Amino acid sequence: MYFDDMGVGFSYETDEREITEEEIIAFAQQWDPQPFHLDPEAARETHYGGLIASGLQTLAMAFRLTLDAGIWNESSAGSPGLDELRWRRPVRPGDRLKVRGQVTDMRPSRSKPERGMTEIAYEVLNQHGEVVMSYRAMHLLMRSPEALAEEAGEG
Amino acid sequence: MYFDDMGVGFSYETDEREITEEEIIAFAQQWDPQPFHLDPEAARETHYGGLIASGLQTLAMAFRLTLDAGIWNESSAGSPGLDELRWRRPVRPGDRLKVRGQVTDMRPSRSKPERGMTEIAYEVLNQHGEVVMSYRAMHLLMRSPEALAEEAGEG
Repeated sequence: MYFDDMGVGFSYETDEREITEEEIIAFAQQWDPQPFHLDPEAARETHYGGLIASGLQTLAMAFRLTLDAGIWNESSAGSPGLDELRWRRPVRPGDRLKVRGQVTDMRPSRSKPERGMTEIAYEVLNQHGEVVMSYRAMHLLMRSPEALAEEAGEG
Repeated sequence: MYFDDMGVGFSYETDEREITEEEIIAFAQQWDPQPFHLDPEAARETHYGGLIASGLQTLAMAFRLTLDAGIWNESSAGSPGLDELRWRRPVRPGDRLKVRGQVTDMRPSRSKPERGMTEIAYEVLNQHGEVVMSYRAMHLLMRSPEALAEEAGEG
């Protein structure tokens, strides 16, 4: 979908994906080697009471699930950033995550008329329907050829 | 370092690490399969003019460099979230990244007196000294035994 194809309020949901203990440990070894992400024994001694996924891995899974949903990625020209990222509940081995996205703002670019900025509020949910992470992302999306032709016709 | 060992204004810098084309492509295949992260040929056709690292990979490198610097991680009890994450310049194969952190706020927890919340503003710089990414993170850090003993003595 192009910038012009999603209005404010447009929402979608991705497929679900399970996260395993093996994946949690492998990710932590590479990027986030803290005891509660790395080692089930050590994690039991922390206030988390057991192994939890790196928040960065939850974010990475959200990125991948969102891309695989194929909503806006064909028209994506990148992202300037994220806001208010919150890790709201621990993600544990065996949890199944999915992502809900809802468009909260959109504005055509003034300097680059062929694209626009779309803001999407994301929630990552576990198999119990609990929100484990939330954030807002800005996406640079290409405008649709039809919308651009129409505006050129008006101008 | 414990919560009490870093005041507002405390700053530090990590070691530097290079990112290779191979690492950029491998990360993109797993987490962020967009053409400008995946394929040098396809990336040349985009407005980036060549392969760039996933912003998520820049964040992952920042996490790892920060942990490896060993400033606060021994006392870390996790992070509630990140704010104002901005990808400010592309990261390209061969770039060497390092991280600067500066404490911008700190407050002891009311409900859990053994820990406190420390806010750190991070900048990721490339080998030219340009800021490629910035964000603020909240860190839950354990209070020092000395500070807790002192407060108990006063109370």
